[in-house]
Amino acid sequence: MTTLQQLLGTELPLIQAPMAGIQVSAMAIAVSNAGGLGSLPCAMLGPEALRSELAAIRAGTDKPFNVNFFCHTPPVPSPEHEATWRAALAPYYAEYGIDAASIPTGPGRNPFSAEVADLLAEFKPPVVSFHFGLPSAELLARVRGWGAKVLASATTVEEALWLEAHGADAVIAQGLEAGGHRGHFLSHDLTRQLGTFALLPQLVRALKVPVIAAGGIADANGVAAAMALGAAGVQVGTAYMLTPEATTSAIHRVALKSEAARHTALTNLFTGRPARGIVNRVMRELGPIGAAAPEFPLATSGIAPLRAKAEAQGSGDFSPLWSGQNATGCREVPAAEVTRALARGFQASR
Amino acid sequence: MTTLQQLLGTELPLIQAPMAGIQVSAMAIAVSNAGGLGSLPCAMLGPEALRSELAAIRAGTDKPFNVNFFCHTPPVPSPEHEATWRAALAPYYAEYGIDAASIPTGPGRNPFSAEVADLLAEFKPPVVSFHFGLPSAELLARVRGWGAKVLASATTVEEALWLEAHGADAVIAQGLEAGGHRGHFLSHDLTRQLGTFALLPQLVRALKVPVIAAGGIADANGVAAAMALGAAGVQVGTAYMLTPEATTSAIHRVALKSEAARHTALTNLFTGRPARGIVNRVMRELGPIGAAAPEFPLATSGIAPLRAKAEAQGSGDFSPLWSGQNATGCREVPAAEVTRALARGFQASR
Repeated sequence: MTTLQQLLGTELPLIQAPMAGIQVSAMAIAVSNAGGLGSLPCAMLGPEALRSELAAIRAGTDKPFNVNFFCHTPPVPSPEHEATWRAALAPYYAEYGIDAASIPTGPGRNPFSAEVADLLAEFKPPVVSFHFGLPSAELLARVRGWGAKVLASATTVEEALWLEAHGADAVIAQGLEAGGHRGHFLSHDLTRQLGTFALLPQLVRALKVPVIAAGGIADANGVAAAMALGAAGVQVGTAYMLTPEATTSAIHRVALKSEAARHTALTNLFTGRPARGIVNRVMRELGPIGAAAPEFPLATSGIAPLRAKAEAQGSGDFSPLWSGQNATGCREVPAAEVTRALARGFQASR
Repeated sequence: MTTLQQLLGTELPLIQAPMAGIQVSAMAIAVSNAGGLGSLPCAMLGPEALRSELAAIRAGTDKPFNVNFFCHTPPVPSPEHEATWRAALAPYYAEYGIDAASIPTGPGRNPFSAEVADLLAEFKPPVVSFHFGLPSAELLARVRGWGAKVLASATTVEEALWLEAHGADAVIAQGLEAGGHRGHFLSHDLTRQLGTFALLPQLVRALKVPVIAAGGIADANGVAAAMALGAAGVQVGTAYMLTPEATTSAIHRVALKSEAARHTALTNLFTGRPARGIVNRVMRELGPIGAAAPEFPLATSGIAPLRAKAEAQGSGDFSPLWSGQNATGCREVPAAEVTRALARGFQASR
């Protein structure tokens, strides 16, 4: 039986969750050097930034690392939906003195593509993980071509079986507690989303490939609990968000350290797809799931200038304050120390 | 330090979750005799039935047991809300040939009261647990008067601190995965509800009293995981629903054994308060959270005749098919065997 460590080539069966907007190569390097699998979130990186971050990782560690991509189908922009969205945001534009006509429309997040695969092939990342399903069989074959292992997130038994059948080497069981974007891709019905305690053992039972637990794991006890439920390893994000290697904004750091972090919700206001963040003003007033938000990732451009203006005034009222439901693991210590502390959970579970 | 077993007077720190409509004294007796804490759900029992069930438990076991009550404030019935509800159900009444004028209105579920406390005092149940908060200080003092230990459910850190401050001897951390009624009572905002992996460790950290894990625990691995997260014990419901001691209907048993059990949702259609059950026709067509449903527990009477007619035809389309998100622990074995199997999780966690 292959362990997750053997599959990934790491010392620990521990993956640092890729967190777009929260970290780049420095975090991945620190975690990989500490024995975990560091991850680079690539959805918001253009080709030049991606190349530069990959070069930095290759220079910073000789350990395995993961690159993460979204693989959504970009929607056809709808002027009507965009107008609805701008209308919903209009009072805020007025409040902040923003000229709505000056706001560019644009995608915000790009899916995995042939161009990206070409670029990756130069760097041959040992692990590639996907959110929102998997790319086409052709693209996946290219990734496998340089020997990469493929991971992907499942939020239901059906999605996990689909990922296994389509070639995932291991499946991430993304429990409802997890921060950031929900990875669901077979159904958009949020009532189908399961807590980690329910999702994880059902995937372990249903799959042949290793199952990686994600969602609510904050410390060594959480790791031990996930292993008790049959996980082959864990993926942890929120606990890394206060580390010096994270690019988490000051506003976001304050929120994570406050009692506000007790109340997160899934919201589609920041990108168009449900993602978990700390509840703030715009989530309270328009949502958290707002019908006016256009399809992923098109909601981003409309809200971006509000975020920028509010943040310039020290406010997170329009910022995506991504967080899982359990921020108690957040500590202002180096990512290597978070990794080592989490790793104690594997010893406890033996 | 007092363990949960010492507090409850049981061999095991394991509580069989009270499940109104699913079990009466036979289940409580079987679990208590097997070393756990059997529970009698009392919210739907009139005085005579309550007396008779308590007498049966006292005759069936000399071990500790738990009696469970709701402690909601009964709403003032609103003819307008009731009319809205009947209008929403009218197409179904027509389909089943039900004369809407013949349907009685009525509460369905009664809160804990002085009359009930009088009756309980004759039987002195060793443990009394509450859902939706706690009864008045006066009523609680009466319960304590015969030496009962008091348990109550929390769904947020705030609720847990409130229960501890108001005299709960232990707090049940009801994770979002749990079947049946959500126990929230300080806020009705469902986005505040947390998965077990996030709720449990936060309550363990916040409280001085023991924390009992509930929600998604299906087997010994689940018990071990809960203990790893710091629980003093566990409360398990769904895993008992196929036992011969359960009064679970044949229709409900079939649903629990099928793949339909993979998709549960919180719904207010059956009682007026959100409760988790397997998704069925009425939940798909009117909800699962429907604005037309009147306040708890007033929704019950309007839907009851539909349930009766549909069940008579072998259909669960209008039945509350209560279930947690993880029905994989359901086995058609005696409740004592379920109890012993779960208990192996405590050994694993030592």
